[in-house]
Amino acid sequence: MKKLINDPADVVKEALAGFAAAHPQIRVDHTHRIVYRAEPARLGKVAVVSGGGSGHEPMHIGFVGAGMLDAACAGEIFTSPVPDQMLVATQQVDNGAGVLHIVKNYTGDVLNFEMAGELATALSGAGNEIQVETVRTDDDVAVQDSLYTAGRRGVGVTVLVEKIAGAGAEQGRPLAEVAAIARRVNENGRSLGVALTSCTVPTAGRPTFELADDEMEVGIGIHGEPGRRREPHATAAEIAELLVEPVVADLPLRRGDTVLAFLNGMGGTPLIEIYLMYGEISRILAARGLTVARSLVGPYVTSLEMAGCSLTLLRLDDELLSLWDAPVTTPALRW
Amino acid sequence: MKKLINDPADVVKEALAGFAAAHPQIRVDHTHRIVYRAEPARLGKVAVVSGGGSGHEPMHIGFVGAGMLDAACAGEIFTSPVPDQMLVATQQVDNGAGVLHIVKNYTGDVLNFEMAGELATALSGAGNEIQVETVRTDDDVAVQDSLYTAGRRGVGVTVLVEKIAGAGAEQGRPLAEVAAIARRVNENGRSLGVALTSCTVPTAGRPTFELADDEMEVGIGIHGEPGRRREPHATAAEIAELLVEPVVADLPLRRGDTVLAFLNGMGGTPLIEIYLMYGEISRILAARGLTVARSLVGPYVTSLEMAGCSLTLLRLDDELLSLWDAPVTTPALRW
Repeated sequence: MKKLINDPADVVKEALAGFAAAHPQIRVDHTHRIVYRAEPARLGKVAVVSGGGSGHEPMHIGFVGAGMLDAACAGEIFTSPVPDQMLVATQQVDNGAGVLHIVKNYTGDVLNFEMAGELATALSGAGNEIQVETVRTDDDVAVQDSLYTAGRRGVGVTVLVEKIAGAGAEQGRPLAEVAAIARRVNENGRSLGVALTSCTVPTAGRPTFELADDEMEVGIGIHGEPGRRREPHATAAEIAELLVEPVVADLPLRRGDTVLAFLNGMGGTPLIEIYLMYGEISRILAARGLTVARSLVGPYVTSLEMAGCSLTLLRLDDELLSLWDAPVTTPALRW
Repeated sequence: MKKLINDPADVVKEALAGFAAAHPQIRVDHTHRIVYRAEPARLGKVAVVSGGGSGHEPMHIGFVGAGMLDAACAGEIFTSPVPDQMLVATQQVDNGAGVLHIVKNYTGDVLNFEMAGELATALSGAGNEIQVETVRTDDDVAVQDSLYTAGRRGVGVTVLVEKIAGAGAEQGRPLAEVAAIARRVNENGRSLGVALTSCTVPTAGRPTFELADDEMEVGIGIHGEPGRRREPHATAAEIAELLVEPVVADLPLRRGDTVLAFLNGMGGTPLIEIYLMYGEISRILAARGLTVARSLVGPYVTSLEMAGCSLTLLRLDDELLSLWDAPVTTPALRW
């Protein structure tokens, strides 16, 4: 294992130290491993909180800032944060308008966020309750249940949910409405990924799985968990078809629909290949009569050094489009 | 070789197609492989042009936009663009105030940009000459001469030169002044990189160099060309010392100096490791009495899927700082 690390057990702690040094506009609670907006949101704004295992950077810590997340909790690599982290984050960011938890559908994350939400409500004083709503993302069409989930896994759509719900919160909408927007994004988004190589969890010290030199894993999970099937390594054009077809069929998208296309790099694949793949995706979507109104191309939900990519398509309506376009100021997304 | 590509010979062409689809605000001339700002700059603004071999994305194509480059020429992977590309780009973007060429110090790039500059001047009508100034970047302290250069290689500082000179041009400064700013950035910037793994050029189909499982290459070039020495793989803290010491000594930086610290990911290293490394760098710089006024952390000058990082330190003065902070709107840098 060759990595830019010290002790494998200290990776998350030390990466948060570097993140804090690199982004002085963001506040890091090192005790609880929570990343906050340095400028507190205004009174009456719904707070948006997410979090999950580390190793997917920039998700989630890179999405903290105006127009997106108020706080993100960082777990160990590929391991859910604990309820205490989510509780502290929730108590810190509540501004009286309630807190939305955005949770990727993995059993550990779901249970821990659930417990944190219950504790936040129970511990808040009478007449001063913290309202918590939870939205789960489960956009991965690869498998129905998986190693770490009941139901589908939450992957790429999480970025879009965080951005769009964050914009809704910034507009001053009430908690129920922000949660409804977040659910609408999840319901209208689907994803599928492919891996060319494995990732290596630092404390494990060896690749999570083995792939032969001429194989790829279609439907890979973002922790290296198994996908739908192994196939011989194919061309970018063939892989693009493999990714588009199940995503379009599952939603389903119909000729004339307008979408946001998010092509995500898994971490180890160079940007030039991600752009090349996006060219193929874009061509196929046009041939299917779909209009790509917006795109996001690059490594946003990584799996350590895994090589590969994932495609997320989100069916857009005018409101989602306008919330997507709203200003955002975070380390990883900014416009 | 497992990559998200079709025919290895078509990688650059197809990646530009994807880039164009992903960034409709940028115009791509596919015949000449030039990326332009879609909105032409105002009359009287000095135009800033760069370019080089592909495989380093987002450099340079991702830096085209308001406040940075007016055009970027994309060569084949790790191969200089040809003079014709640079000539066409220069003619297209000249607004009457002249054109600055920012050229990384590699023999092919230097000769081709030189020829393009001469042609641009020679071909422009009498009384209507295109003025061209050229600034070479040569910030890599690793080696004095190298496989592809006479003199030092141009690496990470190129991003800073493009940003800061671009801001100067945006302010309406004359060509000589924009060129002087660019030279000042280069003179005050130094870099050093380390690789943990090789890259693989698609048309070659095999790794550019071999590194044992317990080795790293200190002073690596961005095309995988040899560095200073091979060493046993070390901890992040040790690697940070290896990078900081020669950069600080070469400038030299003195206690009390203010710097911009740019920690660059080489392409295959996950962001969590880059943040971790930046924590180490930041700690060492503070211990040496250096003030980090600004930082840039992430993969900006990549070498395909090479794992590793490079450190660039730029000694700042008030003017350079204010030009760095000026607004920029490009696919890869935006604030």
